[in-house]
Amino acid sequence: MAIHPIDYRYGSKEMRQIFTEENKIQKMLEVEAALAKAHAAVGNIPKEAAEEISRKATTKFIKVQRVKEIEEETKHDLMALVKALTEASGKSGAWVHLGATSNDIIDTSLALQIKDALEIFRKDLIDILKLIAHLANSHKDTLCVGRTHGIHATVYVFGHKFAVWADEIMRHIERLEQCRDRVCVGKMSGVVGTQAGFGSHAKEIQNLAMQYLGLRAAPITTQIVPRDRLSELICLLALISSSLDKFATEIRNLQRTEIREVEEPFKEETQVGSTALPHKRNPINSEKISGLAKILRGTVIPALENVVSWHERDLSNSSCERAIIPEAFILLDEQLKTFKKVLEGLHIYPENIARNLHLTKGLIMTESIVLALVNKGLGRQEAHEIVRKCAMEVWNTQKTLAEVLKSNPAVTRYLKSEEIEEALDPAKYIGTAKQQIQEVVERTKTIEF
Amino acid sequence: MAIHPIDYRYGSKEMRQIFTEENKIQKMLEVEAALAKAHAAVGNIPKEAAEEISRKATTKFIKVQRVKEIEEETKHDLMALVKALTEASGKSGAWVHLGATSNDIIDTSLALQIKDALEIFRKDLIDILKLIAHLANSHKDTLCVGRTHGIHATVYVFGHKFAVWADEIMRHIERLEQCRDRVCVGKMSGVVGTQAGFGSHAKEIQNLAMQYLGLRAAPITTQIVPRDRLSELICLLALISSSLDKFATEIRNLQRTEIREVEEPFKEETQVGSTALPHKRNPINSEKISGLAKILRGTVIPALENVVSWHERDLSNSSCERAIIPEAFILLDEQLKTFKKVLEGLHIYPENIARNLHLTKGLIMTESIVLALVNKGLGRQEAHEIVRKCAMEVWNTQKTLAEVLKSNPAVTRYLKSEEIEEALDPAKYIGTAKQQIQEVVERTKTIEF
Amino acid sequence: MAIHPIDYRYGSKEMRQIFTEENKIQKMLEVEAALAKAHAAVGNIPKEAAEEISRKATTKFIKVQRVKEIEEETKHDLMALVKALTEASGKSGAWVHLGATSNDIIDTSLALQIKDALEIFRKDLIDILKLIAHLANSHKDTLCVGRTHGIHATVYVFGHKFAVWADEIMRHIERLEQCRDRVCVGKMSGVVGTQAGFGSHAKEIQNLAMQYLGLRAAPITTQIVPRDRLSELICLLALISSSLDKFATEIRNLQRTEIREVEEPFKEETQVGSTALPHKRNPINSEKISGLAKILRGTVIPALENVVSWHERDLSNSSCERAIIPEAFILLDEQLKTFKKVLEGLHIYPENIARNLHLTKGLIMTESIVLALVNKGLGRQEAHEIVRKCAMEVWNTQKTLAEVLKSNPAVTRYLKSEEIEEALDPAKYIGTAKQQIQEVVERTKTIEF
Amino acid sequence: MAIHPIDYRYGSKEMRQIFTEENKIQKMLEVEAALAKAHAAVGNIPKEAAEEISRKATTKFIKVQRVKEIEEETKHDLMALVKALTEASGKSGAWVHLGATSNDIIDTSLALQIKDALEIFRKDLIDILKLIAHLANSHKDTLCVGRTHGIHATVYVFGHKFAVWADEIMRHIERLEQCRDRVCVGKMSGVVGTQAGFGSHAKEIQNLAMQYLGLRAAPITTQIVPRDRLSELICLLALISSSLDKFATEIRNLQRTEIREVEEPFKEETQVGSTALPHKRNPINSEKISGLAKILRGTVIPALENVVSWHERDLSNSSCERAIIPEAFILLDEQLKTFKKVLEGLHIYPENIARNLHLTKGLIMTESIVLALVNKGLGRQEAHEIVRKCAMEVWNTQKTLAEVLKSNPAVTRYLKSEEIEEALDPAKYIGTAKQQIQEVVERTKTIEF
Repeated sequence: MAIHPIDYRYGSKEMRQIFTEENKIQKMLEVEAALAKAHAAVGNIPKEAAEEISRKATTKFIKVQRVKEIEEETKHDLMALVKALTEASGKSGAWVHLGATSNDIIDTSLALQIKDALEIFRKDLIDILKLIAHLANSHKDTLCVGRTHGIHATVYVFGHKFAVWADEIMRHIERLEQCRDRVCVGKMSGVVGTQAGFGSHAKEIQNLAMQYLGLRAAPITTQIVPRDRLSELICLLALISSSLDKFATEIRNLQRTEIREVEEPFKEETQVGSTALPHKRNPINSEKISGLAKILRGTVIPALENVVSWHERDLSNSSCERAIIPEAFILLDEQLKTFKKVLEGLHIYPENIARNLHLTKGLIMTESIVLALVNKGLGRQEAHEIVRKCAMEVWNTQKTLAEVLKSNPAVTRYLKSEEIEEALDPAKYIGTAKQQIQEVVERTKTIEF
Repeated sequence: MAIHPIDYRYGSKEMRQIFTEENKIQKMLEVEAALAKAHAAVGNIPKEAAEEISRKATTKFIKVQRVKEIEEETKHDLMALVKALTEASGKSGAWVHLGATSNDIIDTSLALQIKDALEIFRKDLIDILKLIAHLANSHKDTLCVGRTHGIHATVYVFGHKFAVWADEIMRHIERLEQCRDRVCVGKMSGVVGTQAGFGSHAKEIQNLAMQYLGLRAAPITTQIVPRDRLSELICLLALISSSLDKFATEIRNLQRTEIREVEEPFKEETQVGSTALPHKRNPINSEKISGLAKILRGTVIPALENVVSWHERDLSNSSCERAIIPEAFILLDEQLKTFKKVLEGLHIYPENIARNLHLTKGLIMTESIVLALVNKGLGRQEAHEIVRKCAMEVWNTQKTLAEVLKSNPAVTRYLKSEEIEEALDPAKYIGTAKQQIQEVVERTKTIEF
Repeated sequence: MAIHPIDYRYGSKEMRQIFTEENKIQKMLEVEAALAKAHAAVGNIPKEAAEEISRKATTKFIKVQRVKEIEEETKHDLMALVKALTEASGKSGAWVHLGATSNDIIDTSLALQIKDALEIFRKDLIDILKLIAHLANSHKDTLCVGRTHGIHATVYVFGHKFAVWADEIMRHIERLEQCRDRVCVGKMSGVVGTQAGFGSHAKEIQNLAMQYLGLRAAPITTQIVPRDRLSELICLLALISSSLDKFATEIRNLQRTEIREVEEPFKEETQVGSTALPHKRNPINSEKISGLAKILRGTVIPALENVVSWHERDLSNSSCERAIIPEAFILLDEQLKTFKKVLEGLHIYPENIARNLHLTKGLIMTESIVLALVNKGLGRQEAHEIVRKCAMEVWNTQKTLAEVLKSNPAVTRYLKSEEIEEALDPAKYIGTAKQQIQEVVERTKTIEF
Repeated sequence: MAIHPIDYRYGSKEMRQIFTEENKIQKMLEVEAALAKAHAAVGNIPKEAAEEISRKATTKFIKVQRVKEIEEETKHDLMALVKALTEASGKSGAWVHLGATSNDIIDTSLALQIKDALEIFRKDLIDILKLIAHLANSHKDTLCVGRTHGIHATVYVFGHKFAVWADEIMRHIERLEQCRDRVCVGKMSGVVGTQAGFGSHAKEIQNLAMQYLGLRAAPITTQIVPRDRLSELICLLALISSSLDKFATEIRNLQRTEIREVEEPFKEETQVGSTALPHKRNPINSEKISGLAKILRGTVIPALENVVSWHERDLSNSSCERAIIPEAFILLDEQLKTFKKVLEGLHIYPENIARNLHLTKGLIMTESIVLALVNKGLGRQEAHEIVRKCAMEVWNTQKTLAEVLKSNPAVTRYLKSEEIEEALDPAKYIGTAKQQIQEVVERTKTIEF
């Protein structure tokens, strides 16, 4: 029976596959194969031996079950794998793992897993970027109320929300690319990093092995690849996760009964909810995204603590990474996939957006009126005071700001009725919002990773 | 294939069992049964119906597979369980889950799991306490060097280290007891906490149901039991985990090749290590304990964030707790079990302890000499200066402090050779250490939980 | 010019005073005085010397400036203080700091500061408890809508929100009391905890000194009081802070323009806001509370890491605690004081609460209607289906649920118009909410700390 | 009296100056000046007005005290500054802050502070890099023991430790450069990001103002620059801090009495220590570095939580950033400056390094002997077994590995005495370590930032 939700509930099949025990073993075998081939290439071992090892270095031949049996005896997981591969490779087995220390294989195969996982993130981020860009573009003319501190502030443009998100996603893509270059490195450097066990072609062996695997070689290491590389990545995953939390929180807030400008996708027929309340559509997907972000933020702490290691390595990163790496990757994957689903089916209610825009009866347009009065030559302080009094009247009565302004001689002395209407028109007071949206949307089209 | 190490590697069988999907369902069924019995007790439903529901409310009858099938349709895990129990209970099924909201069952069954898990921690802490007390007592006369900043400071007693640990463990037992009283609470309070769905005997129903389950009822809740209770517990688990990290770090430091006062248990014959080095016994168990503590510290963040919830509850605690609760419990369990194993087989090397005590050739006893001089009437400042100069000579030559002191007239004017010897005798300069150890050891015998 | 906001912006005067450099020195002097008196009591030093030291052991005589000057030379802050006190005490100075190590003074004086600070927290929590209890009691009959996931769920009672908070505050008071007993301990145990420097009356000296200071003696320590004690406290402060974040978030949400059931206090005349918008009253105090809670959560990490220390102590807790202790205390103090102010002047708008209760035109009462139908003998499933269809009609038209139900023959066959009205009456569907509130309010009256 | 250590103890003068209240106001004034000049450039306001505002926009004219007085009345710090500048600018004052919202000034001036602070970090990192590269180069031929798990593993090269650090510092420089591009952005985008208040030249005004200030304009914002930018930076500062923690921990470990390969700088004459122990030189600087790293790791949590903000901004980042930004910068500055000082005066003890290398009497060279035997044609398994037995003999007697090997016929059959000597020579078993060091050192010379 499964215990941890990444084992039974969260994560896409493709992402979870990367972090299964089986795939971990598969990647380690690939590293052993690359090492054998590199040795052969520099003439350290027979080409045929390398070929035989490479042929056997797959979980088709090396069964997880067998590796686990050997580990039961030896209490050392990597040595168990080496033994199993040695067994399977017949007399070529003598050339398995030549000169290497366990961590040459462990760190390098981890880089392979990460590389595959980052490729999935890349795709998801780009899918999300496209969905957001589409929403931004679709609502570049939808006026809405802008809220600061949760309070109505001034007129805003609905699509601008999404354009802000798109810009943020593009930053994440850029960060991921920069970080990938630093984190996708492997090593063949031995017990303390000197490569003493690899003989005179050590450097070449390392370079060739990494080339076969599609990784860069770390320029210098101790027994382990320094953990600042991995810690940087975990911080970045937590950062992306927190952005998703922000987006999800926006959807949760906009879906509130009193606001209801958007709703997560739902199936009208089957997904009735437990009670009879038809309005009870809970933003459960967005809530899940927010919930998982908390865990991701928590993983940053062990990741940063792992940077510290005694001398040429201590082992305290090992147990820790066994848990936090699959967790961080699979939970972020769950968030990304969930967010994609939410965006794909997001319901947007223009009538509610419009209703909320006018909820304060024009009060959100006072700044525009002040500007109009000042443009007519009224002093700024005076204009402010006149408008403030009008606003108070709106607030204390059932009148709209338009009505109050039009019946106030101090205003009508400067502004004609149609000028008041114009200054109160939200559509006239959105600055460069539309242009900003369009520029961001254009930029999303140029993104590759 | 398992992914998360709590699913394939860490945690005792007994602790992991508590957090399996199956046991979670079992506990929920027990809560449903308790609810039905409470309804029957106050006359809301037929006694026979409650009996039938109780009889079926076990995973013997309600198969996990069936619950999962229903969840596949309904997308709601608790409702799936209710449906499955309803099915199984025949016409008594009509009385299943009466008046309750999902979270009445979820939060209450979580409290049952936690209660069982805390009982395991209690046992482990007491086992560890006994082992530590034994070590403290066995080494209450073993002199060693005390180190501050990693530098030799003065004479110390080896058993005192363990007595300090024992005192710390006793504090954790006390904390766990206090926290348990706050965290092991359940509820039958409905959608927003008013108990409106339970009818006129609501309070009695809640109290009876909790009584059947061995829990206290939360005095007041919203839809959920407020999360400060759970967050407090997670903080405490992280605190215990950090103490274990301290103890493990001490063992790792004392096992260093240059120090080597202790060694983790090892099997001389089979556990040879990957290289031929017989001294290469790595403190891998203690390193694992340190590694897992980092994760526990990280779980505190989501736990604290979960305290915040919108209005009568939002769902963002749910996904988060699915991961962090089993993780915190199972990883701490792994630490405790591992530490117990380390303590049980800990090798202690008195000859190395003695060697290190004398490594600085008496320099760690200078304070004692100053005291002896002052007791003979020498001024404190003067005494200091004389001893400081002697110490410098020891430092810059190969002589011992005893040799230098005995050949210094400024010293011998006040102290006879045997008085110098006495003042340099580490055994005479350990204050109340032995008495402190004995008192702590005595106190450990009174601990119950 | 001040840099950190606890130096120029946050924290009450009384709390900040505790953590000034001057008060830190004052507390250290008090510990030195207690030590001298204890020595005198056991006959180690002349009574007059102890009296003279005690008389001078105050910042009236020992100027901070002088201590800093000496520190400039010696690079050791505690030694500088000892020198300054020695200077000031004339020939009695010879008896200053006798047998003690720096950390005997540092840890003990820290406990004194903490004790004073916890007394302030106690008062603030009780003040807040009273304010909350008053709000709970005042609104025990105020019906409102209950929200889960941000969505309207069912009828609720406004005062119940506060009763839930009151219960939470009472838990915090209980926790603080339990934690205080563990954290307010001092020590006179010397360089590595053996008390070797204090002579034959060591235990008595420690006990007397602590008695004079109103602290308990730690039963056993190394050079430092083990840090699990302090870490537990920081976790608790972060927990209290997170509860305040929850309460503040509720106020921020209830103050949203679309909801507007409450508003933070504001001064109508002077606090107009930067724009002319009279509705723009931002919940800035509650936002500040939420903002500071994030910092408090962050301090838990260093506090937990500080539990680990090498051998008989390393120094890495020292720099860390210099920052996080005043920060955690002063920022929580700021939160408590701010929250008190918010509660004292909280505006509650019953008309908006009522408006929101009815926003879904009766839909939040469907559960009650189902119950009424079932009570009349209709099958549960049937009743559900009928009500669900009615609810859909409300949702898709402008009608109220009452109107729809009364015109539905399937309903009216079972329920008379007045029975429908009764079942739709929110006031009839609040279960034990009022009784719960009253019980909590009663309990708040029994709290002492 | 100061409270927080960044106000009285930590941080260089230059770094602390950046985060004083006065400099914060200075930077805000510079932003107001840039805005006025931009308005003038597009013809919105008279050039003379912009000049007058610019002339007055300095703390020479706008006194902090005056700003604080106005804030006392208005309860709004930025508005107080605007008023003070308006006062000071005479009739040009009418054009101050035109079209801007408070946060246009706050976020932009924060970017200016960060830019200056990053410049200091750049210099410190490069200084440190040079010092480390020098150490690496100086010790590229110093053989030492390599330790994994704290246990002696095999021969290593002392300079390689530093080369590993140098490579890590170069990664940090690269990261800081990439991050700087994202974080050093300002904005003139108004209340919700639409630029509505800036009129038809809004985009140009923003671009010009940023150009005057040496910043890039954020392409799109809400009221605030999205916080992922700042959060990324804080994560990076914590990452750098954790690397320093690693380096400091290495020094602390190497300075242990039993190891003593290095010592922090100390002044033999004045810095005697509180006791008479001449060997008691504590690594207090490195301990401070480790201690502060804990705080930095803690700041990552609030930074990540700040990414989430409601709608077009909530205020909960504001109080939080007031504390964590100066704290993170000044404490990292303290770490960097301290580490520089430690490196500049680091004592390295070649004789102790040599002693430790030979502590296990050749056992760390067994791998090399196995290799030598295999090269002579012996089977790997056989060779292993022979050497393992020899190693056991060394372990259980006082003999060296050389002695044992030379008297073992199974060995001498394959290896002559001089071949044994050669295989046991640590200098022959360091692989490419020296070459790696040289390559890293060469690379450090190419670094600019």
